[in-house]
Amino acid sequence: MLTNDKLAEWDRESFFHPSTHLAQFARGEAAQRIVTGGEGVFIQDRDGNKLLDGFAGLYCVNVGYGRQEIAEAIADQARELSYYHAYAGHGSEASITLAKMVMDRAPKNMARVYFGLGGSDANETNIKLVWYYNNILGRPEKKKIISRWRGYHGSGLMTGSLTGLELFHKKFDLPLAQVIHTEAPYYYRRPDMNMSEEEFTAYCVQSLEELIAREGADTIAAFIGEPVLGTGGIVPPPAGYWQAIQKVLDKHDILLIVDEVVTGFGRLGTMFGADHYGVKPDLITSAKGLTSAYAPLSASIVGQRMWDVLMKGTDENGVIGHGWTYSAHPIGAAAGVANLKLIDELGLVQNAADTGNYFWQTMRDEVGGHGNVGEVRGEGMLCAVELAADKDKRQFFDASEGTGAKVVAAMLKRGVIARAMPQGDIIGYAPPLCLTRAEADQIVLATKDAITEVLG
Amino acid sequence: MLTNDKLAEWDRESFFHPSTHLAQFARGEAAQRIVTGGEGVFIQDRDGNKLLDGFAGLYCVNVGYGRQEIAEAIADQARELSYYHAYAGHGSEASITLAKMVMDRAPKNMARVYFGLGGSDANETNIKLVWYYNNILGRPEKKKIISRWRGYHGSGLMTGSLTGLELFHKKFDLPLAQVIHTEAPYYYRRPDMNMSEEEFTAYCVQSLEELIAREGADTIAAFIGEPVLGTGGIVPPPAGYWQAIQKVLDKHDILLIVDEVVTGFGRLGTMFGADHYGVKPDLITSAKGLTSAYAPLSASIVGQRMWDVLMKGTDENGVIGHGWTYSAHPIGAAAGVANLKLIDELGLVQNAADTGNYFWQTMRDEVGGHGNVGEVRGEGMLCAVELAADKDKRQFFDASEGTGAKVVAAMLKRGVIARAMPQGDIIGYAPPLCLTRAEADQIVLATKDAITEVLG
Ligand SMILES: Cc1ncc(COP(=O)(O)O)c(C=O)c1O
Ligand SMILES: Cc1ncc(COP(=O)(O)O)c(C=O)c1O
Repeated sequence: MLTNDKLAEWDRESFFHPSTHLAQFARGEAAQRIVTGGEGVFIQDRDGNKLLDGFAGLYCVNVGYGRQEIAEAIADQARELSYYHAYAGHGSEASITLAKMVMDRAPKNMARVYFGLGGSDANETNIKLVWYYNNILGRPEKKKIISRWRGYHGSGLMTGSLTGLELFHKKFDLPLAQVIHTEAPYYYRRPDMNMSEEEFTAYCVQSLEELIAREGADTIAAFIGEPVLGTGGIVPPPAGYWQAIQKVLDKHDILLIVDEVVTGFGRLGTMFGADHYGVKPDLITSAKGLTSAYAPLSASIVGQRMWDVLMKGTDENGVIGHGWTYSAHPIGAAAGVANLKLIDELGLVQNAADTGNYFWQTMRDEVGGHGNVGEVRGEGMLCAVELAADKDKRQFFDASEGTGAKVVAAMLKRGVIARAMPQGDIIGYAPPLCLTRAEADQIVLATKDAITEVLG
Repeated sequence: MLTNDKLAEWDRESFFHPSTHLAQFARGEAAQRIVTGGEGVFIQDRDGNKLLDGFAGLYCVNVGYGRQEIAEAIADQARELSYYHAYAGHGSEASITLAKMVMDRAPKNMARVYFGLGGSDANETNIKLVWYYNNILGRPEKKKIISRWRGYHGSGLMTGSLTGLELFHKKFDLPLAQVIHTEAPYYYRRPDMNMSEEEFTAYCVQSLEELIAREGADTIAAFIGEPVLGTGGIVPPPAGYWQAIQKVLDKHDILLIVDEVVTGFGRLGTMFGADHYGVKPDLITSAKGLTSAYAPLSASIVGQRMWDVLMKGTDENGVIGHGWTYSAHPIGAAAGVANLKLIDELGLVQNAADTGNYFWQTMRDEVGGHGNVGEVRGEGMLCAVELAADKDKRQFFDASEGTGAKVVAAMLKRGVIARAMPQGDIIGYAPPLCLTRAEADQIVLATKDAITEVLG
């Protein structure tokens, strides 16, 4: 940080940053960056740096930075009505319009949308609804949730439990007892290198079946998964995975929560990941892409078979005891309406498919052959480069070496932001969906040079 | 609803409203209101109704509706930079400035502020931090949280467990095992009518001591409470309560979380309730008044003794595994900065004390004598009128009669919004802090007429 003035000092002395080394930051030993603006795929900081944001914030600024259409929608809403609550049947034009727009885009058989603030609270809502559902159906024992190792579903107590990553469990006493984890559908890390994708899918299905048998199907309420594993390593599923999983769930009357916080509204080159993989969710979790992060808003989209039971529940018990003060906040709703319009107008879902494919395939061509690149994988506008100490033996670097973080730091010197994923030496990419081929090339080049700098 | 058009239909067919009777709403049998604007203490709906909002949304629009200073701050921020994340030491000018402003206003011995979205997620953060704290201190068994019956701390799985109200537990399998409840400091509902306030405080303290003894002090991490019980009935504590509780907690090395989501930033006529009652929190939960709800933002303010341990934690374990994508969202931060400035400029903390006192004392004078008014109580800009079937015997109405809801409905016909609190026949008031005496009189008059209409 060049401009080390009062603001920088206040930052170190007052601000508890998320996912940060608190002590190093307070002592002035850790990175500090004050972001001041952005346009398209670029952000700018107070020190005059202009960086290509290859991770779209936290894979959320899907339409790119500086969209004045959304800014003006927010401004208009703020002037007219910044806030009124949505309890007891209250709404605003923006929140109702957005509800309709979400339902129009959602997979078939979805019935209603509940608006919260972020992905974590949407998953929290979903778990509450799942428990309520089984209580109304008179199945009080059917409550456990199956999640996958390497899944990411948030950072709260329940949602951090759903998350299957060590960083979010360690020292926090997570996971809570109600959550159990099954195999990550991570083909590159399959237990036996000789397995085909189909064999590995069968292996995942068998693990799930065994877990269900061990716990008892009448104790299991729901299965939650991201269409493509995100924070766990940006891993598309092996062939046939989702169809096979859905069969198991149907057989045991287990609800399916599809967490589309990353994939919803276009990132895979389809409106939803559920459609992309042809699964039928009972609940969809959405946030990020819903507003492209211009204002906080999340959505829990509830399928018809759950909705019918929720209605029965209120007929029997009255008002449902669930709500956030800022549920369906008008500013978030206005941002959502403008954002979804813009996604359509700019054809960003299609661009995520086209330029996304170009991006990760170019990445594969350019760095896939490097001796320390174990795998390059992608789907739509998502890509990961996984490093290996010994590619042929699939041996990984020691975590303490921070190899992935070093590559990301070397990319930053070249003006490109990527993310060192938290578990494994995996470079993650999730650029804004408006990425051009020239910008894709720039990310690939920075990656290639950075890998050479760090690993030779 | 007069304007029963497409929008109203979309609402019923797409929108899952919080705290609503879902089936009645879907069938068109429940109230539906589309709010379009507001100014000062008034809101307007699409049918042309102008209503005096005696509950400031959900006690959150503290500066009142339609403040263009905040709207313009939001608009400017949206145009410049709607979003960048705050992970790994990133920030925006707005979020850093707000962190500094919060610390300047917070009670002594507070060290840092973590920004989330709403009150529930701030309490979720707080519980995570409390658990982390005791793990770092090597006290893995010291984890239970004591909350009070009738407390309200949110609607998630953990935060709904902290909440001590039936509506938020029933059919949701709450509270979770880690949460235990103690006596509500609710003098009007004391077990023995002959107790003085001081005796009742001693009774609450004794209950707490017994609970701690039963569970074992080394199993108890923290105590959480609102300075004035809010959703549980708007109940100021009995004389000496907080000092006495703090002593017990200090003795057993139990952390104190003061939930100031309602009371923070002025509602009691002081900047914080902790100062109002002279307690020393380890954590303060804040939301609502931080931005006056113009944009979602919450704050967990961390005291020095916890902060020291959190820093130690990251020195030992690296980056803290906690964060929301929208932590410290720039739009919320910009709203917060403008809002706190406005509170100062308009002298709203002082007005909450002055006009607030005038308001609830006038209420007491005007309706306190009615045969079905058991108690009128208040503190700052908070007031409650508690109804009783038999005032002298302190007998309550049967809940199924919905007497409180009927009075609130009769007030609405007179153009004034109050809130039927969820447990008991209690009419709650929490107007914007800019309330004038004339507006206070209008609320009192509507209450008086409504009580006469419903109860004679
Ligand atoms: C798949 C998924 N679910 C949930 C979340 C949690 O969202 P938030 O950070 O908004 O709470 C995330 C955040 O990255 C996510 O990637
Ligand atoms: C004291 C208190 N804490 C926490 C909350 C939860 O806040 P939110 O609804 O923003 O999640 C509330 C909401 O009314 C509250 O009154």
